[in-house]
Amino acid sequence: MLTASYVGDHRMSVAETEPVPPAAGEVQVAVAYVGICGTDLHILHGAMDARVSMPAIIGHEMSGTIAALGEGVTGWSVGDAVTVMPLDWDGTCPACLAGHQHICQHLDFVGIDSPGALQGRWNVRTDLLVPLPAGLSLEHAALVEPVAVAVHDVRRSELGDRDRVVVLGGGPIGALISLVATDLGAEVLVSEPDAGRRALLEGLGLRTLDPVAADLAAEVDSWTGTAGADVVFEVSGAAPAVAAATAVAKVRGTIVVVAIHPQPQPVDLKQVFWRELRLLGARVYERTDFERAVELLAGGSIPADAIITGVVPLAEVADAFATLESGQAMKILIEVPA
Amino acid sequence: MLTASYVGDHRMSVAETEPVPPAAGEVQVAVAYVGICGTDLHILHGAMDARVSMPAIIGHEMSGTIAALGEGVTGWSVGDAVTVMPLDWDGTCPACLAGHQHICQHLDFVGIDSPGALQGRWNVRTDLLVPLPAGLSLEHAALVEPVAVAVHDVRRSELGDRDRVVVLGGGPIGALISLVATDLGAEVLVSEPDAGRRALLEGLGLRTLDPVAADLAAEVDSWTGTAGADVVFEVSGAAPAVAAATAVAKVRGTIVVVAIHPQPQPVDLKQVFWRELRLLGARVYERTDFERAVELLAGGSIPADAIITGVVPLAEVADAFATLESGQAMKILIEVPA
Repeated sequence: MLTASYVGDHRMSVAETEPVPPAAGEVQVAVAYVGICGTDLHILHGAMDARVSMPAIIGHEMSGTIAALGEGVTGWSVGDAVTVMPLDWDGTCPACLAGHQHICQHLDFVGIDSPGALQGRWNVRTDLLVPLPAGLSLEHAALVEPVAVAVHDVRRSELGDRDRVVVLGGGPIGALISLVATDLGAEVLVSEPDAGRRALLEGLGLRTLDPVAADLAAEVDSWTGTAGADVVFEVSGAAPAVAAATAVAKVRGTIVVVAIHPQPQPVDLKQVFWRELRLLGARVYERTDFERAVELLAGGSIPADAIITGVVPLAEVADAFATLESGQAMKILIEVPA
Repeated sequence: MLTASYVGDHRMSVAETEPVPPAAGEVQVAVAYVGICGTDLHILHGAMDARVSMPAIIGHEMSGTIAALGEGVTGWSVGDAVTVMPLDWDGTCPACLAGHQHICQHLDFVGIDSPGALQGRWNVRTDLLVPLPAGLSLEHAALVEPVAVAVHDVRRSELGDRDRVVVLGGGPIGALISLVATDLGAEVLVSEPDAGRRALLEGLGLRTLDPVAADLAAEVDSWTGTAGADVVFEVSGAAPAVAAATAVAKVRGTIVVVAIHPQPQPVDLKQVFWRELRLLGARVYERTDFERAVELLAGGSIPADAIITGVVPLAEVADAFATLESGQAMKILIEVPA
């Protein structure tokens, strides 16, 4: 089988290796497609070298079919189409005991902290498997993980029908949050400075604004009759967007912090106080989000074909990362040979 | 009657003036006691000159008795003991229409934006009155407003019984939040760098820590078995406390932003994301908070005598502000002559 590993120094290495049989309680998944994301790019840039063990088989957005069953596995059959919810919690830390296993204090994020999906045959514990329905193509199913992120972010916001929503940042997660929120009946405005991304978003039927050329706060004021946005998603990781978030949220409005801000960021806490705002961090997903993501994709609520910019063979994974880095792609899938 | 007005240039002016009869829908309150707070000090320092109309009769923490009824007033009698909830909303802005009148987008905060309680006879619309029970002294009742702030802050946190709470900043509001949280069954640790304040807080039965000398995060880790604090109240307005808040809150913990931060403050948004924290702004109070504050004071749950550092006659209001400014007083009341 082929594997793609991050080997340090901004390099991915593709190699032919022998598959290992699945252990007890595991299945062997014939991986079909793997989506690559900003976190994978971050790994490639060396920013997470302290966390990954090289050579690191990365990849945590995937689809495939079961190729073999390990000892004692029941309820699954060879040929079943599956995806993997790549969270492995300890079940014993205070966060787990409080019911927040998805953000376990010692979470193993599969594909980062342990080997991921960029391999032809991937052995996975059955409790991480999520079944895929017959009507969902494996190509589209590779989007389940990022859609689950968006579903989680939107669920965390407690968004209401007809809420006015501002999404700050129109990359893949910003686009998916916008689509999931729209599906729930919200009106969405995406603020995104990049013209190419705005064109992509408009192509998905989303309303956009260039925050460099236009005054977002004035636009939201006029849109909402000075009330402000019900919910704001900060998906950009940029300081001006953090300032915009507190400026456009309504009294008692909600700001969901989705992006990763490596350094402490100036936040207008006076506005948080004055308008009794609510800032919520939102990270990964719970199983209910994964299952809802499967439903949304299977039901056609997410325009998967428009989100998938291209499909690249595993042997050309380095090119795929270069395209992702250009910032013009929405989602690139790696096709893993059988 | 005597009035005390802020006249600019760091000065309060005390003058003898003629009382005005109450208008229709108003009562004339014979003011008994007025508490002074950080906001009043802020006004005296000139920091709110753009907001107050000089000469400004300030004062928004008070108690008194009804001295006369205006035309058409029913349900109130001369001699009734009252306090005033000093919020005058427009009832028509989006925040009011959504049920958040207390943070109306055009709120008139009585005693700041319109004349307040530092006057012998104060005319007040009846809808701002809150009745006081027979068992509550007028001296203690002057604490209703700051206690209502604390009740609101604690209610906003959705604090649970036995929750572990960190209060950052041990001034009057930090002390009252700690007492209200303790009354609800929480375990409280107050972080306060000033030794004099810590001694005051310990005298109230509160556990304290000096964040300069001790490692607050390590202390909270050991206290909570690495879980972190359930709720953190940021009452200090200081940058190190904002950093501490995100460092000590548990996974899915709540941080209530009570203090006013005039400038945007660095916030560890990565931690907000990582632990799915919840930051909530909390400002003033709703009527239910005011009524609960009356109950707490009447029931003896707040050690009012220990909170009241001193009572100063209205003629010496300037001295009272000087004492407040020293930072060693908890609450100073101004006694208003009949």
